[in-house]
Amino acid sequence: MSEAIQFLEPNAAILSRRKEILADLAELVPAERLVQEPNELVPFETDGFIAYRRRPLAVVLPETTAQVAAVMKYCNKYGIPVVPRGAGTSLSGGAIPQEDAVVLGLSAMTGILDIDYANRCATVQAGVTNLSISDAVGGDGFFYAPDPSSQLACTIGGNIGMNSGGAHCLKYGVTTNNLLGVKLVLVDGTVIELGGKSLDSAGYDLLGLVCGSEGQLGIVTEATVRLIAKPEGARPVLFGFDSAESAGTCVADVIGAGIVPVAIEFMDKQAIEICEAFAHAGYPLDVEALLIVEVEGSEAEMEAMLASIVEIAKRHGVKTVRESQSAMESALIWKGRKSAFGATGRIADYICMDGTVPLSQLAYVLKKTSEITDRYGLRVANVFHAGDGNMHPLILYNINDPEDAAKAEAAGMEILKLCVDAGGCLTGEHGVGIEKRDLMRHQYAEADLAQQMAVRAAFDPNWTLNPSKVFPLEGRT
Amino acid sequence: MSEAIQFLEPNAAILSRRKEILADLAELVPAERLVQEPNELVPFETDGFIAYRRRPLAVVLPETTAQVAAVMKYCNKYGIPVVPRGAGTSLSGGAIPQEDAVVLGLSAMTGILDIDYANRCATVQAGVTNLSISDAVGGDGFFYAPDPSSQLACTIGGNIGMNSGGAHCLKYGVTTNNLLGVKLVLVDGTVIELGGKSLDSAGYDLLGLVCGSEGQLGIVTEATVRLIAKPEGARPVLFGFDSAESAGTCVADVIGAGIVPVAIEFMDKQAIEICEAFAHAGYPLDVEALLIVEVEGSEAEMEAMLASIVEIAKRHGVKTVRESQSAMESALIWKGRKSAFGATGRIADYICMDGTVPLSQLAYVLKKTSEITDRYGLRVANVFHAGDGNMHPLILYNINDPEDAAKAEAAGMEILKLCVDAGGCLTGEHGVGIEKRDLMRHQYAEADLAQQMAVRAAFDPNWTLNPSKVFPLEGRT
Repeated sequence: MSEAIQFLEPNAAILSRRKEILADLAELVPAERLVQEPNELVPFETDGFIAYRRRPLAVVLPETTAQVAAVMKYCNKYGIPVVPRGAGTSLSGGAIPQEDAVVLGLSAMTGILDIDYANRCATVQAGVTNLSISDAVGGDGFFYAPDPSSQLACTIGGNIGMNSGGAHCLKYGVTTNNLLGVKLVLVDGTVIELGGKSLDSAGYDLLGLVCGSEGQLGIVTEATVRLIAKPEGARPVLFGFDSAESAGTCVADVIGAGIVPVAIEFMDKQAIEICEAFAHAGYPLDVEALLIVEVEGSEAEMEAMLASIVEIAKRHGVKTVRESQSAMESALIWKGRKSAFGATGRIADYICMDGTVPLSQLAYVLKKTSEITDRYGLRVANVFHAGDGNMHPLILYNINDPEDAAKAEAAGMEILKLCVDAGGCLTGEHGVGIEKRDLMRHQYAEADLAQQMAVRAAFDPNWTLNPSKVFPLEGRT
Repeated sequence: MSEAIQFLEPNAAILSRRKEILADLAELVPAERLVQEPNELVPFETDGFIAYRRRPLAVVLPETTAQVAAVMKYCNKYGIPVVPRGAGTSLSGGAIPQEDAVVLGLSAMTGILDIDYANRCATVQAGVTNLSISDAVGGDGFFYAPDPSSQLACTIGGNIGMNSGGAHCLKYGVTTNNLLGVKLVLVDGTVIELGGKSLDSAGYDLLGLVCGSEGQLGIVTEATVRLIAKPEGARPVLFGFDSAESAGTCVADVIGAGIVPVAIEFMDKQAIEICEAFAHAGYPLDVEALLIVEVEGSEAEMEAMLASIVEIAKRHGVKTVRESQSAMESALIWKGRKSAFGATGRIADYICMDGTVPLSQLAYVLKKTSEITDRYGLRVANVFHAGDGNMHPLILYNINDPEDAAKAEAAGMEILKLCVDAGGCLTGEHGVGIEKRDLMRHQYAEADLAQQMAVRAAFDPNWTLNPSKVFPLEGRT
């Protein structure tokens, strides 16, 4: 892999004190919650952004907020960097450590503390997986809405760090729209509470600020999230088109007409083939682009919304329209979509971009994306949340060929710049992490970045928390 | 009126330089945009929180972002406090100036800059009124969702400052859920852009932070807001109950069942009488509490949701259920609700509290509220957004009787503390302003407040922007 992205130089003084630090950490968490052997540290060297890896100084896996606070207080005292980690599924390298850092893993904090239907919310510890929240309340007819494809593994703490989305966020919003409160351990070990069960909060919206701050403002140990009642029914419908452009403009017109289905997912031909081979979902193979549109509600509601969408799709020359006929078929259709990244990984290495664009630019950006990858001689598969304008070009390459890897990275960066130049943004749901850090200057003017860093300094003046991430290394304040 | 709330001592050096400052400001905005004569300053002395007033040093009403930036740069250079103002409808005194402050009014910036249906958003200047956004897009079948009762007058800039809500926010969310981007002038005159037409933004969610920051982090001059398609149909339904408690627990059960109507508004007997006398909306006068529930969608959708709600209401002994039979009747029902404050003002002076509580506490807090006002010998009318748990007790008193006024204020403070103690918060949509500033310590621990103030300092280190507001005067950092 190319090493285009620089890490911060590790602090030699901290490295030389490793033994002492380990001994101190052993006082703060139970012995089995401190990971220090080289072979045991390997799984913590990288995350979903596997192109880069660094071995951390140590890993702690606290069981309580008090233990998290004790570790934070200790690391703050000695200036030791802390890299928070949920399940390590970050696609932007948000959980990749650095050599002088303590990884603070929340995966042992898996308690579901409170389920409160009268206030339609649940309070859980940060290491609870996304899907297990829905599992805990599903029997009573509720669910937690944001559904990243990694929802079986990823934790609510990580979701909050990255403000994670998912296919069904078109209707229900992303993490920030479904988060009511958190318990946050500040860099010096102080514990504060933001938000709660009631609407809004007096003073500033620090809860919203913390959501999506990629672990740089504090460590979330508990979260109160909104629960939503399951719809009466739900059904994915497949719309096949002869061109990506027709599918893209169709999406813009559906949204432009004010119709908000639960999900509008897009797959191009390459993605259709990859996902169909994996999931046997019955995707049409004779089309250039596929939309998976999910409608929900009563039969009448689903039919009414679907009729409006079909009418618009016909104006864009839709070739195939197929409603799921059974729960089994629906499950397969979603399995294919949600397994897209894993299925792609079976045929090639890939990096997944995460730019967002205004919907009116969707068709244009898709066309330019394939021009860019063609120019680099790379293949691309597009599979993404079209209703939100949240694109996910998967650039296929060979991780063991440094030249190929460098090309893939360069093409990815060009695509993200394209999204920004089209009025969009670097990341819809995967976060800036380490991957897109050096593109932040393309998105933001100096004054914008300076203001973000000033806010960061109000929480973490010494760049202790996840320091290699989000902001370019040069020009930091 | 009592003067329980202290203002900051005006800076004598600034007061003594008033003539010079006026001359300088006259260079920065057109002559007719600088208000300096005492009689012309009177309307800017207070806002919707009329119990307090202060005459500002001057008022500027810029027409462009560049003029706003020039004024900010100037005031920052000389340490002159700046109090931003939209339409001056704040109910918490958010726009009440101080003697050494320049009021920066945005009311002249009324341009609708862009309407973009493909991306379902509109970009407007900060002085555009809330309702005029919906008016501009209504003909095309869209609207802007948050609907404060003052929507005819209040501006989008003020809505952003206070994160305003409204009756229909139960389904559609409050301002922060409908705001996509702003142009923000920082305290030193730097102009930054937050958010935009695409989903999310890379880096921290400063947009969410600015929303609800009560003009303390910068001056919003332009906003991009979400547009929503009008529903096929909508209908308010009146549910009358024999007790406030039954109505309150009914609301908790509706929400607890996962049903989300567009609005659930609550009126107690006092409020029903006041509003009916004003609007002749046909509210039942033989009940102790009334819920106005709005359902929307197709006929089938409305009927289905209504049936579920009626079933729950019956379990709570609902006495009257009456669906609106016509558009005219619907308009009257909403007119009565939205005029509640004005209608109350016809019969007495009042202060309006704005606490929120978890829905499970609604009935309890209503009962305790009347115990508190009974103890002070005051009348109270309750009319509020029940579905959100956002209470609005209107405490009736005589503004010209200092003893009565002091009692009303004291009762109000007790009620807000009650809300906080019940797990709720000081303010749902009216903001902290000057009114609830000194209660912030009841809501927050020192560490919480310190963190909020640290964030504030990252934007405005010298407390120049709206300085008397939000945070208690003592213990500021």
